[in-house]
Amino acid sequence: MHKVVFVVKGKRQVEFLAGQRENLLEAARKAGIMIDTPCNGNGTCGKCKVQITKGKVDALSLTRLTEEEIAEGWVLACSSEIVEDIEVNVPDLASAFQNEMQITDLSENENKNIRYVRKKMLKMGMTDSNRLCCEIIQLPEPTNDDNLADEDRLKRYFRQTLGYSDIQVSLDVLRKFPDAFRENNFKIKVVYLKRGDIAEIMDVRSCLECACALYGVALDIGTTSVSACLVNMDTNEIVSKASMGNAQVKYGGDVINRIVYTEKPGGLKKLRDAIIEETINPLIGQMVQSAGITTDDIYEMCAAGNTTMTHLLLGINPDHLRREPFIPGVNTIPEMKSTEIGIRINPEGRVYLAPSVASYVGGDITAGVFAVPVWLQEEFTMLVDLGTNGEIVFGNKDFMMTCACSAGPAFEGGEISCGTRAVPGAIEEVKIDDATLKASFSTIGGEIPVGVCGSGIIDLICEMKRTGIIDGKGRISKDIDNPRIAFDEYDIGRYFVCSKELDSTAKDIYITEIDIDSFIKAKGAVFSAIHTLMESMDMPIEVLENVYVAGGIGSNLGIENAIALGMLPDIPVDKYYYIGNSSMQGCYLALTLAEGKEKIAEIGQNMTYMELSVHPSYMDAFISACFIPHTDMSLFPSLQK
Amino acid sequence: MHKVVFVVKGKRQVEFLAGQRENLLEAARKAGIMIDTPCNGNGTCGKCKVQITKGKVDALSLTRLTEEEIAEGWVLACSSEIVEDIEVNVPDLASAFQNEMQITDLSENENKNIRYVRKKMLKMGMTDSNRLCCEIIQLPEPTNDDNLADEDRLKRYFRQTLGYSDIQVSLDVLRKFPDAFRENNFKIKVVYLKRGDIAEIMDVRSCLECACALYGVALDIGTTSVSACLVNMDTNEIVSKASMGNAQVKYGGDVINRIVYTEKPGGLKKLRDAIIEETINPLIGQMVQSAGITTDDIYEMCAAGNTTMTHLLLGINPDHLRREPFIPGVNTIPEMKSTEIGIRINPEGRVYLAPSVASYVGGDITAGVFAVPVWLQEEFTMLVDLGTNGEIVFGNKDFMMTCACSAGPAFEGGEISCGTRAVPGAIEEVKIDDATLKASFSTIGGEIPVGVCGSGIIDLICEMKRTGIIDGKGRISKDIDNPRIAFDEYDIGRYFVCSKELDSTAKDIYITEIDIDSFIKAKGAVFSAIHTLMESMDMPIEVLENVYVAGGIGSNLGIENAIALGMLPDIPVDKYYYIGNSSMQGCYLALTLAEGKEKIAEIGQNMTYMELSVHPSYMDAFISACFIPHTDMSLFPSLQK
Repeated sequence: MHKVVFVVKGKRQVEFLAGQRENLLEAARKAGIMIDTPCNGNGTCGKCKVQITKGKVDALSLTRLTEEEIAEGWVLACSSEIVEDIEVNVPDLASAFQNEMQITDLSENENKNIRYVRKKMLKMGMTDSNRLCCEIIQLPEPTNDDNLADEDRLKRYFRQTLGYSDIQVSLDVLRKFPDAFRENNFKIKVVYLKRGDIAEIMDVRSCLECACALYGVALDIGTTSVSACLVNMDTNEIVSKASMGNAQVKYGGDVINRIVYTEKPGGLKKLRDAIIEETINPLIGQMVQSAGITTDDIYEMCAAGNTTMTHLLLGINPDHLRREPFIPGVNTIPEMKSTEIGIRINPEGRVYLAPSVASYVGGDITAGVFAVPVWLQEEFTMLVDLGTNGEIVFGNKDFMMTCACSAGPAFEGGEISCGTRAVPGAIEEVKIDDATLKASFSTIGGEIPVGVCGSGIIDLICEMKRTGIIDGKGRISKDIDNPRIAFDEYDIGRYFVCSKELDSTAKDIYITEIDIDSFIKAKGAVFSAIHTLMESMDMPIEVLENVYVAGGIGSNLGIENAIALGMLPDIPVDKYYYIGNSSMQGCYLALTLAEGKEKIAEIGQNMTYMELSVHPSYMDAFISACFIPHTDMSLFPSLQK
Repeated sequence: MHKVVFVVKGKRQVEFLAGQRENLLEAARKAGIMIDTPCNGNGTCGKCKVQITKGKVDALSLTRLTEEEIAEGWVLACSSEIVEDIEVNVPDLASAFQNEMQITDLSENENKNIRYVRKKMLKMGMTDSNRLCCEIIQLPEPTNDDNLADEDRLKRYFRQTLGYSDIQVSLDVLRKFPDAFRENNFKIKVVYLKRGDIAEIMDVRSCLECACALYGVALDIGTTSVSACLVNMDTNEIVSKASMGNAQVKYGGDVINRIVYTEKPGGLKKLRDAIIEETINPLIGQMVQSAGITTDDIYEMCAAGNTTMTHLLLGINPDHLRREPFIPGVNTIPEMKSTEIGIRINPEGRVYLAPSVASYVGGDITAGVFAVPVWLQEEFTMLVDLGTNGEIVFGNKDFMMTCACSAGPAFEGGEISCGTRAVPGAIEEVKIDDATLKASFSTIGGEIPVGVCGSGIIDLICEMKRTGIIDGKGRISKDIDNPRIAFDEYDIGRYFVCSKELDSTAKDIYITEIDIDSFIKAKGAVFSAIHTLMESMDMPIEVLENVYVAGGIGSNLGIENAIALGMLPDIPVDKYYYIGNSSMQGCYLALTLAEGKEKIAEIGQNMTYMELSVHPSYMDAFISACFIPHTDMSLFPSLQK
């Protein structure tokens, strides 16, 4: 056995006893240390690099590491075997990217969209959700003549005083009755769910001085990021919002790698634990703490995730999602109790999951469409959801078509050397000076830069193209002599957004040709998906009246730049709306509108899914789109001018 | 620490490390050794006697032990402290009484009654239960064009081929879908519950060669004994029957002592574990083994127990059942999944519990009345259920009155020196020779006698009265000089049914004046309850046309003798029917008749409960009835003759 000490962010130390020649990445996983592995340990992405600060490992591959890095002791965790006692420094970025939890406000765009859609829906005749109810009740105390059982006594009150036909009580709640009733002489607080004229009792507590406090959670489960907000169910006010990297990232960066991981013994359970125990429950815990309530006060959760995320959350084998003909185990999930899946809210709390449509169009899209809202519009409308998977929905109140493409995690900062989620310190806007090629930038929250998030990457690559640093293929020009541009021993170019040496910053933040390549593939996948979908319906791109762009790529998406990169179709900028996380907005609306869940189910039923992976022209369209802006400039008339 | 070795029945050895001066009974409980403690360790009943065969204990009380016993090392476990390493012999009787599990056939009386009632009910228009269904299905395999999710694929089959409007699937069953569907190319076995036009899917298994096998369990949870039968749900045939002592006995012989025990820390959980883990699950395991099936093949259970047993089974605080005004936490229990309460049948198996009426009239009575069936009769009919609690139901199809009394465990052989449940080897019939006073007897199964069960105790005491061994107060005559009669140093008389010395039997089996006293109190409680109930309605006893006597007191209850002892009213013997375990019969009928559960609920609603403990004349009636046959001989005209 060899002792391995993991040092995370210079502070957190974890000791682990590893076997002879144990893989370092495996050892880190066992020790609970998160290391970014988008390629799932294949030795290709170079993201799992760690620094050996004491002792040595047997490094089987050093792909993507510079000579300088190798000299400093950096190795790829996935390709290293432990042969003696070591100390391992796990870098800042990896942990920031995955693990950091953030309590934030809803972004201005998100707030605006939620308010707009909610108002519109209420005007349409939808009503505020009132199925979750709370009553403070004084029951008559029992006597020899009035000797009803506790449960019958409560039932009588609900029938005679509240007008319900019956009550339903689960065993767990029944168990609370005798003590809760008698602690303060049959004065009790009852929380229940209204189902027609039946009351489903969720909670009974003894009342001394008690107040009704009912909370709900809206949750978006992304492949890379997970976001949640805590909602006061009386006022519909969002009292706390938090986001965090999906802890499943350590088992693979995209859904395919995660599905592959479930085939290992215990793999499915590990992925389930990662999302529930290491992501969702800590997120809820953080929000609850910041709002000064308890998890027991949360009685409802509306959640949405893509089809793979939903399968992994529920512990349903996702293997057939990735094999033709791409069949999910389940699309429509019955409402569950929180304890059934292990979500730590009130044990009787109900968990609703937005239904999926197909293997690659999930609940995040049905919820997102509810919030956008394509289904309400007279005009042709599109939703483009930029995540690890990109999903497109096109239509209006009469029909909806949908398709999905695999973009990879680049939009959320994954698989990008200095990429990060849209967290404080993320570079979100970039300008490059034409003369000096020096970048000026702003970060989220104005904090010291930690990396570049999606919107920053778009700006950055667009500016690099504009200033001639890169060409249409994303290659860095060798003709420019500038200290911000460098090439490593494999001849791979990089551009420094800021550098320790030149700018005296705390760290180097740069982008490499490989990063740019990842981004070009991502934007190419999205553009070609939009193109193929419209083309297959014989619809010119000009019919589009509204395009809603969603996704956690940063709070300030520069639409002009996205068009200039050939990521979004070339239509007037004022037809675009960047609305942030549409899936979470849909969950919030489902939580707070009485008709929300039913409407989302309808949306799921009414969407027609087009499977791009078997579509004859998609691959060609994708290859043509892997260029900045595009190999066919006639698609971008405004750029030709 | 002192080492304690427990020897049970000369074989089973359990070692336990006890603390200094640890109570021997507590130590035995911790070690999982069952010792009979009807008085719950108060040092009054003398049933917890054990023999110290090595070392010594500090015995704080030796109540009820003879000098001979004390000389042989017998002590009361409840009143002994451990002060050194010891070896303890736990006697045969105690373990036989509590722990032995028996696979038996339904008794002739039980079979007769079930067949009779079932036929009558089917004639009345009730129908065979058909809510549990099984189908072997070949689903079409998915293609790119037919790419429904697994769950939707099954739903389509249920809608289009079987005519259901929808299916419901729990998360646990959903998890089985992807693998079960694909293991043999979408040929599957589906077990489901029919609820109107909705099918609740309970199980999905892959089919190579598979057959439908659906089983149910009927279960009677008595305070002293627990009985169950395993039913083939296709044929309604009882394929196995088993009974066992309720393992809760170690925490107290009657419901009051058990309720008191729940107030100790962890007490409620211990009692729950005792009934579920130590009694019901082993019983089911035994039946399943004897029938050659698996617990997964059992999809339904109908159970009944008194109100305390129901609360303990569910883990609901029973404390208020024993305090005026005697309020249960719950009477009507929602149907549950087996996993909710920890019963080991199929995890999706449904558990139905017969509803209670009041604190002392429970589900065993509502189920029993269903089986008897008072509610069907034109004539005035009575059910007398002889258990640790005695319950009386009087009425006909127009009305039903009920009351309960505390008889103690004497009818089931508890609190009787050589008492035993009705197991093989139990003495069930006794005659005493007028001249020699020697008893002749028969045992259940013709085996070597192990003790006396309820019916044997009734015969025995009746014969002792007839032959003048005892007087009306149950005192043994000092005028008779017979080797079968003896008095101990406290002047307490005993009569030997068989004796090592006189009959060369393996063990002494005897009855003491204290035992007879326990029995007189039990029979007095039952008779006075019947008397008070009838009197309160101004009904003479002669109106009774049918009296059904139920309870696990033995397979051959001598009704004449029970009347002669003043236990049952003096009406013609041919109006009596001894039907055995009516509660289990009710559960069997609820399992196999479609309308059963609804009918039992109606019975529960329609019974009027009379609380004897606050009835002004009950205590006087009880005292008058504590005599053989009764202090008021006018109540027994046939005996006067």
